[in-house]
Amino acid sequence: MAESVIRMAEEQEPVKRGRMPKHRPTIADIARRAGVSKVAVSYALNDRPGVSPATRASIKAIAQEIGWRPNSAARALTRARADAVGLALCRPARLLGMEPFFMELISGIESELSARGCALLLQVVNDPVQELEVYRRWWGEGRVDGVFLADLRSPDPRIEGVAELGMPAVAIGHPSAAGPLTSVWSDDAAAVRDTLTYLTALGHRSVARVAGLPDLIHTQLRDRAQREICAELGLGEPLIVHTDYSGDDGAHATRRLISSAARPTAVIYDNDIMAVAGLSVAQEMGLDVPADLSLVAWDDSQLSQVVRPPLTALSRDIPAYGSHAARTLMTLVSEGSAPGFEDSAARLVPRGSTAPPR
Amino acid sequence: MAESVIRMAEEQEPVKRGRMPKHRPTIADIARRAGVSKVAVSYALNDRPGVSPATRASIKAIAQEIGWRPNSAARALTRARADAVGLALCRPARLLGMEPFFMELISGIESELSARGCALLLQVVNDPVQELEVYRRWWGEGRVDGVFLADLRSPDPRIEGVAELGMPAVAIGHPSAAGPLTSVWSDDAAAVRDTLTYLTALGHRSVARVAGLPDLIHTQLRDRAQREICAELGLGEPLIVHTDYSGDDGAHATRRLISSAARPTAVIYDNDIMAVAGLSVAQEMGLDVPADLSLVAWDDSQLSQVVRPPLTALSRDIPAYGSHAARTLMTLVSEGSAPGFEDSAARLVPRGSTAPPR
Repeated sequence: MAESVIRMAEEQEPVKRGRMPKHRPTIADIARRAGVSKVAVSYALNDRPGVSPATRASIKAIAQEIGWRPNSAARALTRARADAVGLALCRPARLLGMEPFFMELISGIESELSARGCALLLQVVNDPVQELEVYRRWWGEGRVDGVFLADLRSPDPRIEGVAELGMPAVAIGHPSAAGPLTSVWSDDAAAVRDTLTYLTALGHRSVARVAGLPDLIHTQLRDRAQREICAELGLGEPLIVHTDYSGDDGAHATRRLISSAARPTAVIYDNDIMAVAGLSVAQEMGLDVPADLSLVAWDDSQLSQVVRPPLTALSRDIPAYGSHAARTLMTLVSEGSAPGFEDSAARLVPRGSTAPPR
Repeated sequence: MAESVIRMAEEQEPVKRGRMPKHRPTIADIARRAGVSKVAVSYALNDRPGVSPATRASIKAIAQEIGWRPNSAARALTRARADAVGLALCRPARLLGMEPFFMELISGIESELSARGCALLLQVVNDPVQELEVYRRWWGEGRVDGVFLADLRSPDPRIEGVAELGMPAVAIGHPSAAGPLTSVWSDDAAAVRDTLTYLTALGHRSVARVAGLPDLIHTQLRDRAQREICAELGLGEPLIVHTDYSGDDGAHATRRLISSAARPTAVIYDNDIMAVAGLSVAQEMGLDVPADLSLVAWDDSQLSQVVRPPLTALSRDIPAYGSHAARTLMTLVSEGSAPGFEDSAARLVPRGSTAPPR
């Protein structure tokens, strides 16, 4: 008995000496330090009557000092909220690493979520079916209050899947492909139109596009816009080469375009790593950029600006796009519905890689 | 009474017709479909006696079909496990976007975690103090079982902070800076030694380094190694310029080095966006790479290979590095301790950007 009392005293000693407890701080830790009962601590922390204002203040000060927080598992059970949302990215790691887009999107999502005490669950998956399985598990286990769907496809099993689960979800992509889901999007067709109009004004009549993955909706929207605008401007059937967004694919496509009989005088790339690869290939093959070949890069990371000549680019505030998506999902979770949001279209920033054709 | 019965029947109808319930599937949903009590479902799903093998099989089949999962909040309360680990990244969004390193690291961490049903919580923060605050909150709220610490600094308030919380944490960085934490690291000094030995063998006597953020431990380790090896090889005091890792800073540093009286014949860059920027500046200033100036890039993303000449680079399997870190953290969480892990050092891959000086 005496021994047991001594052991208890030893266990309590570090706390008495004012050190941080070595486990997650509990109400018992606060009670010991404050010299009150656990019930009193619970009253004080839940702002319920039963303790004096002075004791309440002292208990709250101790709770803050030792880093006590309500257990999210316990709170989630009462509130039925996970205070987390999820994003699964369905691209190979090697390609994701080279896409500034996603890291900037995540940064923007994050800035909005963290201001609201909401966490982001992230997972990299191999295909849309696996992605839906992740969402199903997260939702079933109560880990998330909602999810983002990026890189909409056609057909996209995720759309119907999350709709059937009744899980709040925001599609980052065009509403025409989002089924019943709320969308946050920007107008890809408008960006294609601006670029083609500008290149035509410079005098180009043969403009190719080194495009992204053909099963992504935004690639298809850009393809269709390019076809329509080429027809309007009397440029004929456009030259479109689909790729996996990698520098290798961008280089290969450029080599083929330059070597072809109907060599274009301008090329638009769907991301900037492919545009940089294309610039290298053109220069290697003895072409002068922009005199022999004009180049335009989609997305406008640092990359577009550090090469020579710097690349004319379609520039967007991607972190802001992520913030809009996060705000929309937060509204959807708390209100049960949210209006879609059309972000501004990418803006063409002319730099040294475009000029009238020779 | 009759009305209430009718309403209940209506509510059950979609389930009876075999559709997915529109809320998170519950034990009640399974019980309704199986035509048994909720208690029987609970017995079956928890593998406890009290139901026949046939009923158990049927209940489990229904549970799987409608996507039922144990609620993670309820499970976390019993098991005291969050089945999630956290990573906060302390870099500006603009710079993170251009660092393939982090996305590749996250992909590697992810591949290991998802195989074990563990989620990754991600947050982008402004400074190490805010990062520690995030970890304190995640831990206090029971959201994570442990965390990763990247970009070790000196001094680093996070090390003592997480140690005091008693939270399992793996430092991704050199053990000398990790205090009591378990480390996963690779030998930066060895990579510097290999590079300088190679450049010296080519005949270079004046090698500069465009380095990363000076308060990061791995920058300091590279700086120190460079000084020591330069002294050993009789190359005198090395030229080191610190930057924020951006292409802009890399271009600016290169312009200064090329314009200086003591122009180096070779430059090592701490990441590849700066090396690409440096290549552009050198070519713009009329230098031939590699004849007038040799360049080496740290990290070896696609970027090093799409420019002309392709860049000699210090290459590493960064996803594998992330996997090692995740495995170590998983062991730490489940066993209470884990051995540190030294990953292989970056390997020098010579390409067209290095040659003997003129």
